[in-house]
Amino acid sequence: MRVLGVDPGLTRCGVGVVEGVAGRPLTMVGVGVVRTPADADLGHRLVAVEQGIEQWLDEHRPEFVAVERVFSQHNVRTVMGTAQASAVAILCASRRGIPVALHTPSEVKAAVTGSGRADKAQVGAMVTRLLRLAAPPKPADAADALALAICHIWRAPAQNRLQQAVALHASRAPRTPHVPKGRTT
Amino acid sequence: MRVLGVDPGLTRCGVGVVEGVAGRPLTMVGVGVVRTPADADLGHRLVAVEQGIEQWLDEHRPEFVAVERVFSQHNVRTVMGTAQASAVAILCASRRGIPVALHTPSEVKAAVTGSGRADKAQVGAMVTRLLRLAAPPKPADAADALALAICHIWRAPAQNRLQQAVALHASRAPRTPHVPKGRTT
Repeated sequence: MRVLGVDPGLTRCGVGVVEGVAGRPLTMVGVGVVRTPADADLGHRLVAVEQGIEQWLDEHRPEFVAVERVFSQHNVRTVMGTAQASAVAILCASRRGIPVALHTPSEVKAAVTGSGRADKAQVGAMVTRLLRLAAPPKPADAADALALAICHIWRAPAQNRLQQAVALHASRAPRTPHVPKGRTT
Repeated sequence: MRVLGVDPGLTRCGVGVVEGVAGRPLTMVGVGVVRTPADADLGHRLVAVEQGIEQWLDEHRPEFVAVERVFSQHNVRTVMGTAQASAVAILCASRRGIPVALHTPSEVKAAVTGSGRADKAQVGAMVTRLLRLAAPPKPADAADALALAICHIWRAPAQNRLQQAVALHASRAPRTPHVPKGRTT
């Protein structure tokens, strides 16, 4: 199973692709960050996030996309940007018919470290160990994206298969989604 | 000047097109609501909002898109959906190179009724009068979308021209945005 994890954000959107199945060693396929300039206007930033996510989908062809579920935080401005970047990631996956799963930060931490209250360093250390990397991926958004992908592979494999079947059916339905140029769902 | 106003929402996304210039009578070109089923998953809802907005942009070719600026509200779940629907509307306009303006609810109310604390009925009544309609547009989201477009036409015409020039320049820059099939920016 190949999963693209997305830690959404307008300034830094973490992306990481992990391949494997629950109970076996996992492999990191790719990791990175989609960045958009903080001084650009919101529209251009969202277009840049879309372009970045599209490139990752094109290059790695994931079967699932796992996105961090956004909650209201203290900083309202940040949470808005996060919600908007996550919308773009979810849209990009859904219009290709790729099933999208949302996982909360504590679900991800619990899956990877055993504790829903683990800090960034603990998550980074476990991701490094589980994927047998030489060093923790930087920045933390990139490590978090890999953790999301790992969490998704480990949670409910049966549920994933069901969701994939539903998404495939929906993508073949007559109502064709808008897809970027030169690409078919 | 032709403006598409968007009152973002996942369940009901109000859309309204108004044509005119500040100081002259305005004309309603179209009004409606893009709806998505509350029981569908988030990805499919966002794809449906994208399809709906694309249809309005295709049909009415607005020069500006005015979207309600989303603030944190009491209901966190609602505000997330609103932020995500607004991201899709902003994305659709921006990748075509159409300038997007965000107006707060109180800016819109103040522009249309003279009071930033006007209620839905007052906004609906003023929209009806300003656009010389037979009855207030229903539902309120549709009236709010028209109010957004009116607000945009009345606020800062000079600023609009500047923003349009910047957006045109950006849309001609080498970094080509992803645009839906069979369409050029």
